[in-house]
Amino acid sequence: MTTTPPIGEILGADTPMNWGRWGPDDEVGSLNYLTNAEVLKGVRAVKSGKTFTLMVHMGNPTGDPVWPGRRGSEKLMVIDEGTFRGDKAPQFPGGLHYADDFVTAFLQGSTQYDALGHVWYDGEIYNGYDAATTIGGLSKASILPIAEKGIVGRGVLIDMARYRGKEYLEKGETFDHRDLEAAAQAQGVSIEPRSILLIRTGFIEYFYTVPQSEFYDGFNEPGLTYSRALVEWFRDMEIPNLITDTIANEVTYEPETGCALPLHCALMRNLGVTFTEICMLDKLAADCAEDGQWDFLYTAAPLKVVNGTGSPVNPIAIK
Amino acid sequence: MTTTPPIGEILGADTPMNWGRWGPDDEVGSLNYLTNAEVLKGVRAVKSGKTFTLMVHMGNPTGDPVWPGRRGSEKLMVIDEGTFRGDKAPQFPGGLHYADDFVTAFLQGSTQYDALGHVWYDGEIYNGYDAATTIGGLSKASILPIAEKGIVGRGVLIDMARYRGKEYLEKGETFDHRDLEAAAQAQGVSIEPRSILLIRTGFIEYFYTVPQSEFYDGFNEPGLTYSRALVEWFRDMEIPNLITDTIANEVTYEPETGCALPLHCALMRNLGVTFTEICMLDKLAADCAEDGQWDFLYTAAPLKVVNGTGSPVNPIAIK
Amino acid sequence: MTTTPPIGEILGADTPMNWGRWGPDDEVGSLNYLTNAEVLKGVRAVKSGKTFTLMVHMGNPTGDPVWPGRRGSEKLMVIDEGTFRGDKAPQFPGGLHYADDFVTAFLQGSTQYDALGHVWYDGEIYNGYDAATTIGGLSKASILPIAEKGIVGRGVLIDMARYRGKEYLEKGETFDHRDLEAAAQAQGVSIEPRSILLIRTGFIEYFYTVPQSEFYDGFNEPGLTYSRALVEWFRDMEIPNLITDTIANEVTYEPETGCALPLHCALMRNLGVTFTEICMLDKLAADCAEDGQWDFLYTAAPLKVVNGTGSPVNPIAIK
Amino acid sequence: MTTTPPIGEILGADTPMNWGRWGPDDEVGSLNYLTNAEVLKGVRAVKSGKTFTLMVHMGNPTGDPVWPGRRGSEKLMVIDEGTFRGDKAPQFPGGLHYADDFVTAFLQGSTQYDALGHVWYDGEIYNGYDAATTIGGLSKASILPIAEKGIVGRGVLIDMARYRGKEYLEKGETFDHRDLEAAAQAQGVSIEPRSILLIRTGFIEYFYTVPQSEFYDGFNEPGLTYSRALVEWFRDMEIPNLITDTIANEVTYEPETGCALPLHCALMRNLGVTFTEICMLDKLAADCAEDGQWDFLYTAAPLKVVNGTGSPVNPIAIK
Repeated sequence: MTTTPPIGEILGADTPMNWGRWGPDDEVGSLNYLTNAEVLKGVRAVKSGKTFTLMVHMGNPTGDPVWPGRRGSEKLMVIDEGTFRGDKAPQFPGGLHYADDFVTAFLQGSTQYDALGHVWYDGEIYNGYDAATTIGGLSKASILPIAEKGIVGRGVLIDMARYRGKEYLEKGETFDHRDLEAAAQAQGVSIEPRSILLIRTGFIEYFYTVPQSEFYDGFNEPGLTYSRALVEWFRDMEIPNLITDTIANEVTYEPETGCALPLHCALMRNLGVTFTEICMLDKLAADCAEDGQWDFLYTAAPLKVVNGTGSPVNPIAIK
Repeated sequence: MTTTPPIGEILGADTPMNWGRWGPDDEVGSLNYLTNAEVLKGVRAVKSGKTFTLMVHMGNPTGDPVWPGRRGSEKLMVIDEGTFRGDKAPQFPGGLHYADDFVTAFLQGSTQYDALGHVWYDGEIYNGYDAATTIGGLSKASILPIAEKGIVGRGVLIDMARYRGKEYLEKGETFDHRDLEAAAQAQGVSIEPRSILLIRTGFIEYFYTVPQSEFYDGFNEPGLTYSRALVEWFRDMEIPNLITDTIANEVTYEPETGCALPLHCALMRNLGVTFTEICMLDKLAADCAEDGQWDFLYTAAPLKVVNGTGSPVNPIAIK
Repeated sequence: MTTTPPIGEILGADTPMNWGRWGPDDEVGSLNYLTNAEVLKGVRAVKSGKTFTLMVHMGNPTGDPVWPGRRGSEKLMVIDEGTFRGDKAPQFPGGLHYADDFVTAFLQGSTQYDALGHVWYDGEIYNGYDAATTIGGLSKASILPIAEKGIVGRGVLIDMARYRGKEYLEKGETFDHRDLEAAAQAQGVSIEPRSILLIRTGFIEYFYTVPQSEFYDGFNEPGLTYSRALVEWFRDMEIPNLITDTIANEVTYEPETGCALPLHCALMRNLGVTFTEICMLDKLAADCAEDGQWDFLYTAAPLKVVNGTGSPVNPIAIK
Repeated sequence: MTTTPPIGEILGADTPMNWGRWGPDDEVGSLNYLTNAEVLKGVRAVKSGKTFTLMVHMGNPTGDPVWPGRRGSEKLMVIDEGTFRGDKAPQFPGGLHYADDFVTAFLQGSTQYDALGHVWYDGEIYNGYDAATTIGGLSKASILPIAEKGIVGRGVLIDMARYRGKEYLEKGETFDHRDLEAAAQAQGVSIEPRSILLIRTGFIEYFYTVPQSEFYDGFNEPGLTYSRALVEWFRDMEIPNLITDTIANEVTYEPETGCALPLHCALMRNLGVTFTEICMLDKLAADCAEDGQWDFLYTAAPLKVVNGTGSPVNPIAIK
């Protein structure tokens, strides 16, 4: 491979931008598209009341799917019934017993929302804030304003694995907006402007079926791949939120240039599209395939972590 | 005060119980009331699409409201723009920069769902599981099955502080189901069977307006207080989920016996009512007072922490 | 293998015991042998002033040697020069900059002293304290009294790897007190009563030379192996402290019965011999082999962790 | 107070420097003075074999003395006898039980050694390394080389509190090298070139006798105060290590300029004097006052934390 050019050069000076579109103080980007009208559109998608939660297990003793270099969370008991067999348990009038626990966790070490300030290039994060505002915690475009807003709207699930007749897409396998449109058509659903976009690749399910050494070997997740047309499609469709069952929502290395994660830059940093990663979409996808209803009310709210780069989350789909 | 009798004696052998009602393997208790029909009832409560998120800030540098003895979460940067000014930042092809952070946290140290196995007496947790199943992590009735299910239904907010003409209820101030009914009537809303019950006391708002030494001095939160009739009301109303803006959802010390947290036992352990604590209800309450609509679609999903005693959460109310 | 009998049965009811020898409140066991006279004996061993520190690296990015199931420590920066490139760094009059960091760690996840209450069987820890005193933290025989005392005396190094002509002993390879005596004789040094005993197997050096998967595959460390005679030797020699370059100071599975770690019970719990594990003895051993001096002043002091089961430590040998 | 000038200006361009004195790659500074000869001098100070450990308790449930903004360590049990009353405890052949624990800690949140790269000004740390080398962990002048070396030599204790007839020095109270010399003379001991210098103020003892609110109110520790003559005295005396029973080894705010911690810069950054803070010197001082012997063999070794800014430590004095 020849040397990868800088991301800014790959995307080009005229790459689509939403900076300033919602004012100089905006920190939630394309989530601004989720107006009350979009909430009501999501509500109208509900037919049966079936609900699905989309988080993976957190703190699984056998290991959680995380980006290389991060660790899964460590959970420790502070108090449990064993504590009351000793002499150091708290004593309350009436004699209540209780259990308490404590965790250490990477904020991006499980199913999670990224703050818009999570990635950047050329010294500026989303909306043109100085990258130095990330130092010591995100003063700007942190997860907090996203958590304050909450994400509610019409979600639509595109099952790329099922569309391609696979249990899961292969390492490095790519697709783009035209594939999404084709899959949607095959599913009989339409991706509408301002839809919350969920894409299933099966890759997180693959994590749970193979030894972790196999999962991480030659790490290169399948996923969406960069093209100018794809970025324009996201801009024109006003997609507020991209949700996948991979760790990083896009093919890890863009095949043509070798660039790592250019869509994080083109979509999140430049257009303000919020990313939601490491979801588990198996049950939702199976149900949609069965009843033919691929859209739903989507609700999610990351934790209100002050200055956070992201937050674990357990999104809900209501059909 | 005379010596407090054991909780089991206070509640009595014939206290209302839901153990076994949903089978011997049930772990979500009264959340079973939230059937698809209840989800649809919640959806029908949506009128305008206004949304409110109900979590407090987490990791606030000036301190978070926590039960005495717990600490607020500690958040640390792993990587930020400062890291890239040195020589140890990760290098990706294309030159992406990013921010990453790490927290330590009590799972019950912010707005949070309790697992049904969080409190107990007489050696048994909800549904009769042995209290020893809590040892080393909750094998039974942990937060995981609640997180798998998700909580969706019709929520109704009772604003006890506003009803009593106060900014916040005082330390040790109590109320019961009759007060809730009276306040509901005054608000022009009805608590219906299977409603998700949210109660505002203003006490968490009080936390943010006074020095912490004042907040914790003579710690005795205001809240619901135990009576047999109140427990029967929760059973008969089939309340699935009790949500308040206090740290422990009930008056800390029941005034008559001095017993600590008897409703945790009577409602959570015995009836399987899920508790959600430390919510911030100020904006939702202000809006309800303004437009007169006190019910809404309530959605929440704690994190899928394996064997967890509880989990931070950011609930959403959609009006 | 036939089923392993319980440890108490393997050791026998008449196994050597030091309980009560230093009174009913003793918590430091055989360290009591280290009187001022022994300190002076250690001091007299100093010849040249050469010093060696015996800890392994802690928080090595490529991983630390730990007992399976533990993790190496996670170190995070709180403040560094990068922080001062942003706007959230602390500002002091005069403009001092500084660096600060934070760790999570298993107290026994690096070179470490074990508290005497670290292991037990039959419901009692060292000196007959109830095992329930370990619950929620060691109320008895914690690392604190050992840390208060400090360990100072004459140390003697036995290089079993060198004695057997190997770079490191093999997995499951054993030796006993007769081998120690023979090696000492070959080295020209004597293990005297009350000597602090250091044994080099080369096994921690092996950790750093092979992939971790190889190190942990079929995990069975080389080391001392149980026999009644060996336990009596430790008792009669009044060994205060056993120090090795393995994770657990003895062969993991005693070959005859398959019992895990019986010497932790026979020596630590019953005789009160303090264990120091995961040391790095390569440089000290090389120097001793070169100058023929195998004894020295040994000083070490674990951290004064209240109720701790153990503590990281960096022992010093002064020749 | 008028505005404090920058530290570099206060110290002046001609302030004493040891940069380069031990080569361009040196990372242990004045500890280089501790040659084998100095070790032997320390050994010769031993008379009786009495030993004293100098660390404060770590993880005290009532709180540890820490610099404002840091927290004491949080200790959690991973396994204890309570765990074995449940079904999730590890099972070993033979049935051994054990206890295991886990901590979170600021590396400088207890008795501790500072790395020489811990503080700086004007963009350079000790020996002229770029301050950017601190980013993401200290690549240069970390605690690791100090821990590799270990600190062994002749220690001398100066009891300033006793000299001034006080239980503890008052907030903001200062003293300098002439006071040290006068106190030494009064004690009948001499501070010799290359002595390891321990100073008792009683201030950490004060921490344990008053409410923490009183200790931290108007935080301004007593201690050594800056003057050019004092810095020259440290340089000329070739003091390798300064140890006190305060959190920061010097008066917090230099009275004349208001500058915070100028000696950290003048002594640590410029001369490479290692700082050891938050020691407990009460028992050692009482014994020295009783037997009149104020010098001893001092040994200490911080933990070998890779890239660490400092490390907890439990020093030993052997008389």
